[in-house]
Amino acid sequence: MCGMENGQWIQRHLSELAESTKIDGKIWRASYTEEDGIGHRMFRRWIEEAGLEWREDVLGNIYGRLPGRRSGTILLGSHIDTVRDGGRYDGAAGVMTALAVLRDLKAAGYEPEYNLEIVGLVEEEGSRFASSCQGSCAICGTLREEDLLEKDSDGVTFLEAANRAGYHPERMEEARRKDVLVYLELHIEQGPLLEQQKKQIGVVENIVGIATYDITITGEQNHAGTTVMALRRDPVVAAARLIDQVTDEVMENSPGGTATFGRVDTDPGMLNVIAGRVHLLLDMRDKEEERLRMREAQLFRRLEALREQGFGAEAVRTQWTPPVAMDPTLVKDIHAAAEAEGLSYLHMNSGAGHDAMVFGKLLPTAMIFIPSQKGISHNPMENTSTEDLEAGFRVLRRVAMLLSAHEYCLKG
Amino acid sequence: MCGMENGQWIQRHLSELAESTKIDGKIWRASYTEEDGIGHRMFRRWIEEAGLEWREDVLGNIYGRLPGRRSGTILLGSHIDTVRDGGRYDGAAGVMTALAVLRDLKAAGYEPEYNLEIVGLVEEEGSRFASSCQGSCAICGTLREEDLLEKDSDGVTFLEAANRAGYHPERMEEARRKDVLVYLELHIEQGPLLEQQKKQIGVVENIVGIATYDITITGEQNHAGTTVMALRRDPVVAAARLIDQVTDEVMENSPGGTATFGRVDTDPGMLNVIAGRVHLLLDMRDKEEERLRMREAQLFRRLEALREQGFGAEAVRTQWTPPVAMDPTLVKDIHAAAEAEGLSYLHMNSGAGHDAMVFGKLLPTAMIFIPSQKGISHNPMENTSTEDLEAGFRVLRRVAMLLSAHEYCLKG
Repeated sequence: MCGMENGQWIQRHLSELAESTKIDGKIWRASYTEEDGIGHRMFRRWIEEAGLEWREDVLGNIYGRLPGRRSGTILLGSHIDTVRDGGRYDGAAGVMTALAVLRDLKAAGYEPEYNLEIVGLVEEEGSRFASSCQGSCAICGTLREEDLLEKDSDGVTFLEAANRAGYHPERMEEARRKDVLVYLELHIEQGPLLEQQKKQIGVVENIVGIATYDITITGEQNHAGTTVMALRRDPVVAAARLIDQVTDEVMENSPGGTATFGRVDTDPGMLNVIAGRVHLLLDMRDKEEERLRMREAQLFRRLEALREQGFGAEAVRTQWTPPVAMDPTLVKDIHAAAEAEGLSYLHMNSGAGHDAMVFGKLLPTAMIFIPSQKGISHNPMENTSTEDLEAGFRVLRRVAMLLSAHEYCLKG
Repeated sequence: MCGMENGQWIQRHLSELAESTKIDGKIWRASYTEEDGIGHRMFRRWIEEAGLEWREDVLGNIYGRLPGRRSGTILLGSHIDTVRDGGRYDGAAGVMTALAVLRDLKAAGYEPEYNLEIVGLVEEEGSRFASSCQGSCAICGTLREEDLLEKDSDGVTFLEAANRAGYHPERMEEARRKDVLVYLELHIEQGPLLEQQKKQIGVVENIVGIATYDITITGEQNHAGTTVMALRRDPVVAAARLIDQVTDEVMENSPGGTATFGRVDTDPGMLNVIAGRVHLLLDMRDKEEERLRMREAQLFRRLEALREQGFGAEAVRTQWTPPVAMDPTLVKDIHAAAEAEGLSYLHMNSGAGHDAMVFGKLLPTAMIFIPSQKGISHNPMENTSTEDLEAGFRVLRRVAMLLSAHEYCLKG
């Protein structure tokens, strides 16, 4: 595998990290757990081995730094936590690739104009506490006091867990960074597009907005045998039509948008009883906030139509996360870097949320995707080839050098 | 309420029976329980008060008899058990109306040509044991040894429960009747048709056949954000279309037929995950067995089409109960009786199963429906007016007299 040294280095370290932080045979680095602590120690050691200095902030975000001649920092990173029974690549691939870049530049004697830093962020996944992205929020100054009081399933608060692990989120202001000029995150795609289109690099243009709803449709519970079809108000049939309509509509009118009814519950849910009530969970995503708004309005009109037909039909919006556009200049830089490296690439959106969503609201931010085999993520079957890690490494290094070498980022 | 004496008598006794057999404030006369025993004692007393002799068979079916001059028996009845948290009318209304008829005929000195008997049948509902209609099956000789081994939720078998209550289903052959010429059952409709069409008497032509299915549709579980719509195999969408198609089809092509998806389950059932699998329970009913067969074939073709689209799609048939046609001559007799009594009536099908389904396979059988307020049954809100009970009484008495007075039933 000539010319794959960095991809191999990343692959090997991701494997070592995963094997060393399993619990009950499964990868789960929830923040402030023992496994998370092991991962932190390994990462700090690898930063040192790269000839860099490490530091941790009061949340536990880990930094490694190649100092520049001027103030202002180009930040490369991703998160180091995982979901329960997760894989090797989600999050960690971005952190290790960033470290590989700094290690390579350090070894080459590269001297950046601006500080070039890597960061391993804590608690992006929200696998232990209800919220997510606490690490990036603290850096951006958007973490809230009440976020510290969220409890895990054992009743331990975020604050208590962090304190026990030696961190101090109660002093969150100390974690805030005002010197960051650009945030750049490499991440596995978590979807099948790059693989299907045989591309190595995803140039992310937007992180889609997310709107979620709890929908309840109430009809008339009745005997399945004695109630003729014409006299029924069967909420299962009403729900089926709603699912059909919402699905058709997004496919016809919202390119790149998604609609997912991930859960359907029937009450009482018996073979010979027409259900009285159906409960649905709906997740809608779109890269344009305006279109997400229009889709919500259409959903509400459909429920209104059901009410006119005699059903009860209510939707409670449980989340509204606006889309975040990546910085257009950075997008062009990533595009140009992929071209210069002779790599195949695809402009695309991110359907999942990322720490880049938090940074992207405040400062020029961009993401580089590398392929996920079969689109699998949040699963031990996650896989990304060494070739694709190497490709990601080359693009990230090229963009990092570009950004840290001149005043580009201040123009953004 | 002039001329309502029998309706009032039935109403009053149904009320007394319900109030005396509640458990934890709810009506539940499951066979061989203490409440069931109280009901049996009350019913035996009322038979005696009507001037008739009672007897119980080895299952606990209770009979009252007005003896005829010839051998052969006209049997009028329904079941005396109820579902859990049931109402006053389902089953008991038919038994008490039959008793009111015999009481009235006895008081009038009527002497039938054939024996005229009433029967209160045990365990029609299947609310304690998995099977149902054990009482009528024993009379017809179709109860099986293995039915006696079914256990209730406490692990008590049907046989043990019956033995403890003083009955002996292990001697089931003794309960078998070979002298029954006709079975006639009055029952509440359990549906809204009679009330909606302002009719007092339902002349039942068929008890519909029932086919039930466990359906599993398997797709591809994926991230709700990162999997573009065009690349999904979402089993929730496939299930919604199946529900739509099956519902539309029965409404367009199967007058009187029903299709009910009473339960829908999604796995894993999470907001931000495209489900991997959907499980559906389907109940299809039709008065024509051939059409039920065609509908099943169409269901299987739809699942085949889903498999061609890359889904897993399997249906397991869990029940196939053929429809039972009521005896055409008896149907005409009931029609004529309603006409003669000046009552409004409607020819209709029974969407629910009844003991008449068991008898109807072996001998001339018919059913008379009376209205259920709002179509409600299996519920403490069950209600049938005194006027409607009186109307049912008059039709049942007229038909009972017709049948017991001449050789009609032997021609059938």
